[in-house]
Amino acid sequence: MKIRPLHDRVIVKRIEAERTTASGIVIPDSAGEKPDQGEVLAVGNGKIQDNGEVRPMAVKVGDRVLFGKYAGQGVKVEGEEVLVMREEDIMGVIEA
Amino acid sequence: MKIRPLHDRVIVKRIEAERTTASGIVIPDSAGEKPDQGEVLAVGNGKIQDNGEVRPMAVKVGDRVLFGKYAGQGVKVEGEEVLVMREEDIMGVIEA
Amino acid sequence: MKIRPLHDRVIVKRIEAERTTASGIVIPDSAGEKPDQGEVLAVGNGKIQDNGEVRPMAVKVGDRVLFGKYAGQGVKVEGEEVLVMREEDIMGVIEA
Amino acid sequence: MKIRPLHDRVIVKRIEAERTTASGIVIPDSAGEKPDQGEVLAVGNGKIQDNGEVRPMAVKVGDRVLFGKYAGQGVKVEGEEVLVMREEDIMGVIEA
Amino acid sequence: MKIRPLHDRVIVKRIEAERTTASGIVIPDSAGEKPDQGEVLAVGNGKIQDNGEVRPMAVKVGDRVLFGKYAGQGVKVEGEEVLVMREEDIMGVIEA
Amino acid sequence: MKIRPLHDRVIVKRIEAERTTASGIVIPDSAGEKPDQGEVLAVGNGKIQDNGEVRPMAVKVGDRVLFGKYAGQGVKVEGEEVLVMREEDIMGVIEA
Amino acid sequence: MKIRPLHDRVIVKRIEAERTTASGIVIPDSAGEKPDQGEVLAVGNGKIQDNGEVRPMAVKVGDRVLFGKYAGQGVKVEGEEVLVMREEDIMGVIEA
Repeated sequence: MKIRPLHDRVIVKRIEAERTTASGIVIPDSAGEKPDQGEVLAVGNGKIQDNGEVRPMAVKVGDRVLFGKYAGQGVKVEGEEVLVMREEDIMGVIEA
Repeated sequence: MKIRPLHDRVIVKRIEAERTTASGIVIPDSAGEKPDQGEVLAVGNGKIQDNGEVRPMAVKVGDRVLFGKYAGQGVKVEGEEVLVMREEDIMGVIEA
Repeated sequence: MKIRPLHDRVIVKRIEAERTTASGIVIPDSAGEKPDQGEVLAVGNGKIQDNGEVRPMAVKVGDRVLFGKYAGQGVKVEGEEVLVMREEDIMGVIEA
Repeated sequence: MKIRPLHDRVIVKRIEAERTTASGIVIPDSAGEKPDQGEVLAVGNGKIQDNGEVRPMAVKVGDRVLFGKYAGQGVKVEGEEVLVMREEDIMGVIEA
Repeated sequence: MKIRPLHDRVIVKRIEAERTTASGIVIPDSAGEKPDQGEVLAVGNGKIQDNGEVRPMAVKVGDRVLFGKYAGQGVKVEGEEVLVMREEDIMGVIEA
Repeated sequence: MKIRPLHDRVIVKRIEAERTTASGIVIPDSAGEKPDQGEVLAVGNGKIQDNGEVRPMAVKVGDRVLFGKYAGQGVKVEGEEVLVMREEDIMGVIEA
Repeated sequence: MKIRPLHDRVIVKRIEAERTTASGIVIPDSAGEKPDQGEVLAVGNGKIQDNGEVRPMAVKVGDRVLFGKYAGQGVKVEGEEVLVMREEDIMGVIEA
């Protein structure tokens, strides 16, 4: 992995809908902001809190996570498009 | 259950209006944002407060909860549609 | 009572205008956001403050309270419509 | 007095313009949000601060106060219309 | 002086443009929000901070202060129009 | 200097574009909010923080500073136009 | 380097798209806010936190960083255009 995210940012590789169905999770196709899922490729050191301490991340590399469809920004790393988002944008971890 | 919600998020299965009536709670049909109810399927570890401590969740798995009609985001888990919302969106627990 | 409000929420049964006049309080009929009154049916444990402590509620079951006309959300409990609001929405307690 | 205001709320009886002139304070008649004055009829226990402590009120019953024309909400108590506002809405105390 | 300002409020008497020139300060006449100056007639006890302590005022009675043209609200005291503003609205003290 | 800025305010004399080029810094002429530079004429005592302490200023009299083109308010002091802005508006100090 | 950034500001020299491809990172050309990258030329002392302490910067001179396309303000230093942004605008550090 080539990007080290700062603070509470997470790099996620979106998982395609086909693979989604196989895991038993189906994302509805209707309009509006919909959840999506992906695999965590890299995480920051954690969010810096108001008291100055760093809060460790609640997700780790390899986690399959659920997030809002429009969360994060896309960037290509060695030809592969990934998302950079904040831990806040992650709704949950999918436990297979 | 396949999703582990992060922090103060809650996964709720909406309870249909028919079952609602049976429990003595009726949701009015008029327009606007209306409360709704459901059963808690999973809860996060709790909200991280400004002082860095984690506040335990005030709802638990199995609770029947009341929430705003448009709270949360819908996602399908093994063919069943559930809502992912924050504890903040939950107005109260229905005690049968 | 069938709903246990979370945190700083309060369940209030609106008191009709006729009964209002009897207690000596008259709500003006002019347009705009106007105060209204009701009886407290249930209260949460209190608001969770920034320092993590719970602040006890300033109203209790049985109190007659004054609140903004559009405060809270309506829900029917065993055929009776009540309001779920926050303590913040309550302007004062009417002492007969 | 029949209403006990919650927290930092204050109940004020507006003083008419005629009486205002007598005290030497004249409120300009031009358009826009203009200050107004009244007598304090009741005060809450004080504002709950971020650190959980209650800050005593800076005004007391009987004070003649200056406030923004559109501050507070009107309510009738035993046929007399009063205003319920927050201490924050009060600009100053008029010392005769 | 007839008004005791609450907390961090300041009562200021605007100084006319003619007197301004004499002191060496000229307020530009172009459109937009422009600074203005006045004399402090009364100050509150100070702003109540998040930690509950009162911060003493940084201006005192008699100071000549600079403020945004539209800061404060006008009110007449014994026939003389003054401004009630917050210390926050004051940009600086003019030292002759 | 005739103005003592309050708290975290800074008085800055804008440096003309001609002098700017001489120091090796060129401000682009294209449209939009562009940085600008000036010399610090006076600084306040510092910003009052949430914990009630005063944070000393990070700029001092004589510093050449970079700021957003529309930062601050213009005021004339003894015929010379200066800017009153907040330290927050200053992007950096130019070290010749 | 001629600019010393204040607090949590960072001076970044944008890296052209051609050099980007060589390092294995490709920025997509589609419309909207897209990430971009550059080299850190100077950093401030760090962000001043709510508790008054300074948080050291998470990036250092020489780091290759990823940021939102419209982050920061452009300024020319000795004929070279650089960006002044906040650490908050930096999404991650690219580790070659």
